[in-house]
Amino acid sequence: MSRPALESPALRLGIAGLGTVGIGVVKIIQRHAQMLSARTGRAITISAVCARDQNKARDADLSGYAWETDAVALARREDVDVFVELMGGHEGVAKRATEAALAAGKDVVTANKALLAHHGQALAETAESLGRVIRFEAAVAGGIPVIKTLTEGLAGNQIRRVMGVMNGTCNYILTRMEEAGLPYDTVFEEANQLGYLEADPQLDVGGIDAGHKLAILASIAFGTRMAFDDVKLEGIGRISIDDIRRAGDMGYKIKLLGVAQKTGRGLEQRMTPCLVPATSPLGQLSGGTNMLVLEGDSVGQIVLRGAGAGEGPTASAVMGDVMDIARGLRLPTFGQPANTLDSATPAIASAPAAYYLRINLSDKPGSLAKVAAALGAAGVSISRMRQYGNANMAAPVLIVTHKTTRDAIDHAIDAFPATGVVEGDPIALRIEEV
Amino acid sequence: MSRPALESPALRLGIAGLGTVGIGVVKIIQRHAQMLSARTGRAITISAVCARDQNKARDADLSGYAWETDAVALARREDVDVFVELMGGHEGVAKRATEAALAAGKDVVTANKALLAHHGQALAETAESLGRVIRFEAAVAGGIPVIKTLTEGLAGNQIRRVMGVMNGTCNYILTRMEEAGLPYDTVFEEANQLGYLEADPQLDVGGIDAGHKLAILASIAFGTRMAFDDVKLEGIGRISIDDIRRAGDMGYKIKLLGVAQKTGRGLEQRMTPCLVPATSPLGQLSGGTNMLVLEGDSVGQIVLRGAGAGEGPTASAVMGDVMDIARGLRLPTFGQPANTLDSATPAIASAPAAYYLRINLSDKPGSLAKVAAALGAAGVSISRMRQYGNANMAAPVLIVTHKTTRDAIDHAIDAFPATGVVEGDPIALRIEEV
Repeated sequence: MSRPALESPALRLGIAGLGTVGIGVVKIIQRHAQMLSARTGRAITISAVCARDQNKARDADLSGYAWETDAVALARREDVDVFVELMGGHEGVAKRATEAALAAGKDVVTANKALLAHHGQALAETAESLGRVIRFEAAVAGGIPVIKTLTEGLAGNQIRRVMGVMNGTCNYILTRMEEAGLPYDTVFEEANQLGYLEADPQLDVGGIDAGHKLAILASIAFGTRMAFDDVKLEGIGRISIDDIRRAGDMGYKIKLLGVAQKTGRGLEQRMTPCLVPATSPLGQLSGGTNMLVLEGDSVGQIVLRGAGAGEGPTASAVMGDVMDIARGLRLPTFGQPANTLDSATPAIASAPAAYYLRINLSDKPGSLAKVAAALGAAGVSISRMRQYGNANMAAPVLIVTHKTTRDAIDHAIDAFPATGVVEGDPIALRIEEV
Repeated sequence: MSRPALESPALRLGIAGLGTVGIGVVKIIQRHAQMLSARTGRAITISAVCARDQNKARDADLSGYAWETDAVALARREDVDVFVELMGGHEGVAKRATEAALAAGKDVVTANKALLAHHGQALAETAESLGRVIRFEAAVAGGIPVIKTLTEGLAGNQIRRVMGVMNGTCNYILTRMEEAGLPYDTVFEEANQLGYLEADPQLDVGGIDAGHKLAILASIAFGTRMAFDDVKLEGIGRISIDDIRRAGDMGYKIKLLGVAQKTGRGLEQRMTPCLVPATSPLGQLSGGTNMLVLEGDSVGQIVLRGAGAGEGPTASAVMGDVMDIARGLRLPTFGQPANTLDSATPAIASAPAAYYLRINLSDKPGSLAKVAAALGAAGVSISRMRQYGNANMAAPVLIVTHKTTRDAIDHAIDAFPATGVVEGDPIALRIEEV
C-alpha cells in the first residue's frame, strides 16, 4: 500500500525523566514510527532526553538522542517542539523546566498530577497567554482517557458528579485484605515489599495522590479553579478486616472513593473510604484497576475502567496527548480559558447520605441503648444494626444509618465519650449512592 | 465572573431530522448556550432545521430557526457551517444531503451508522479531498465516546481487539428472558410493545444494526477500509431460555457480542451470540446498557460503559462532535486519511475458542456415545458435558468443548444427522475469552 508523503514537519520531543513511563514512551515511538505518522500526518521524533543518572541501565536504546543533564536546558532546546515532563514532584526542577518550556514557546505534555494540583492555575494562565498548550492525560488514572472524555467527548454536558477509584495501590490493599483475610498492616507491608507504594506511602494510603487527581477532575468537570486544599482527604489506614467483612455481609464493598460534585452548597471534593453496593461497577472493581464514573445531564452515567498505572498504560496516555498536538488540537489546559474558571465556594457540608458506623461497646448492661440514645439526640436514625459477640473484649456494634448529614454523625460521635460505654474511636464511613 | 469577548464567529448548524436525537440536540444548544461558548470560545447556533412533517408536535421551540422542507437545500444553505444529519437510512436523502453538504463546503456530523457502514469510504474520500470533516460519535454506542477514545485517546496503540455489546435492545431481551424466565418470543413481543425495536426488527435482533457499528469500529481500530459485508452476522432469535439458564449454571452469560480482531489469518469481524464469564464486566452488563472493551498493545484493556441510545446520550455524542469542530479539531474521518486505509483480507477462519453446544438427543440407547464419536471424529474434544433428563421428549445435552476451530464444530454438526440420534438443529455458541 502506498502512503502519501508526509506534508508537515516532524514533531520533535524532549523527554525529561526516564523512569518506567519515559522509557515506555521511547519504546512506543521506536516501535510504531510508521503507525504514528500514518495517524498524525507527520513524523514524531525524539531530539533529546534527560534523567538524573545517564549511566543507569535502561530498557531502550537512547543512543540516537542528545543527552541533557539539566531538564531546564532540555526544555529550551531549539530542536524541541514539545517538552514531555515525566520527572514528577511539584516543586523544584519539574516546575522550573515546565515554566522554561512555555517561556521558550514549547507545548508541554506532563504526567505530573502534583504539579497541576498545586500550580495548575498559574501554569495554565502562562501557557494560554503565550499561546501554548499543556496536556496531562497521564496525570489521572493512567491509561484511561478520562481527561479527554470529560473535556471533549462530554463537552456538551453539564457534569453533575465525578466519582472514581483512582489509586490502584489502595484498591489492591483493600481487595487483598478481603480475599486473603489479612489485616491492614500485613498487606501494607506486602505492598511495600512489592514496590507498589510511593517513597512516602502517605501519598498512596493517605489519599493524597488520589486527591491530586480528584482536584484536577473537579476543575475540568465544573469549570472551577484548582482547589486541592479543599479536598477532604481521609486515608485507608483505619479500615479493618472486620469492616470489610461486615460491610460485605450487608452487601457493600469498601473503596477509597473520590467524589466531586457541585450542589447548592458549593463544590464538594472528597477522597475518603466509602461503602458502595457490591453489585455496582465500582463495587466489582478488584485489584489495582482504576474506574471513573462520570455523570452528565444529557449523557447520564458513563463508566471508564482500565489500568491506572504502569509503563504501557501511562505511556499510552502520554502518546495520546503528543498525537493530539501533532494533529493540531489546541485546547485551553482545563477545557476553557484559565482566566474564565470560577473560584468555586467549597461546600459547607457534604450531601446527605447513609453512614456505616463501627462502635466498640464496653461490656456493660444498657450499652446499646445509650449509644442509640446518643445517635437519636444528634438526629441520626438507625436503619440496620448488627452486634457481634466477643467473649473477652469490647464487642463491635455495626450500624447503618438512614440518610443524614456528616455533621449529625460527628455530633453523635462527639457525644459518645459521655455515655461511658464506647471504647476507642468509632469508624464512620459514608455509603455513596452510585 | 467576567467572560472575555468571544473571538471567533458563531458556528452555525443546520439540523436535518427532528426525532428524539434532533430535538435532544436543539435542547442542549438552547439550555447551555453560555456553557458551550465558554468551552469552545464561540457561540454555537442553529440556522435552520428540517424534518418530514413540520406540523408534528415537538418538545422544543423551533420558531427561531428557518424551516427547510428539503434536507439537500438545508445542507447547501449559506448560513450553515455544519450539516447535522440525524435522519438515518443509508440510501436516499440522507446520502444525497450529506454529499451536497460536503460539496458545498460544510462539515458533517452524523449519527447514521448504516450510511457510514455502506458508504463511509466514498464519503470520507470526498470529505478529505475537499478539506471537510465528517464526525460520527453518535453512530456507535450512543453516549459512550468510543470513536474519540479509539481514534484519539488510544492513538498511540496498536489495537489488538475490539469487543462490545452495542445493541441495547438485544441485551435487554436476553437480560429480561433470564430475569423473568420468559421465552424469546414473549420478550420480543414485549420489546415491540415498548417501542424498543426498529421498524424492521431484524436490524436489532438479527445483529445488523450492531454489525454496522462493529464495521465502523474495525475500520478505525485497524486502519482498514470499511467492510460491513465481511461481518459474520448471527442474531439472537435461536437463543432459548434453557440456553441462558444452562450457560448460567456453568458460570456464563449469553450476550450478542461484537468482536473485531486482526490476526495472521486476516481481519475477523463477528457479531454473534457468545458466552462470556458471568463475573466479567461484559457478563455483568444487564438491561439496555452498552459496553465496549478496547485492547491495545500499550494500554492493555479499557472498558467503556454507558447508555447506547436515547435522546440525551445520543445528543451528547452529537454535541461532542459539534464542539470539536467549533474548537478547530480537524481529523480524517477514520483517524487517518481514507486513501491510506488498507483493504484488509477477511479472516479465513475465526480464532480458535471453546464452544458451547446444545444438542437434542432422541431417547435411544447409546445416543450420547454416537454424538461424542462424531465430535471426536471432527477433532473436537469435550471439556464438560451435562445431560438434562426429560420424560416425554428429546433430552438436551449441553457440551462445552476444549479450544477448537469453528470449522471443526461445523464438521461435527454436519455429521450429526448420520448418527440418527440428533433431533433438530444444534446450537453452537462461541465462548469468548474476555
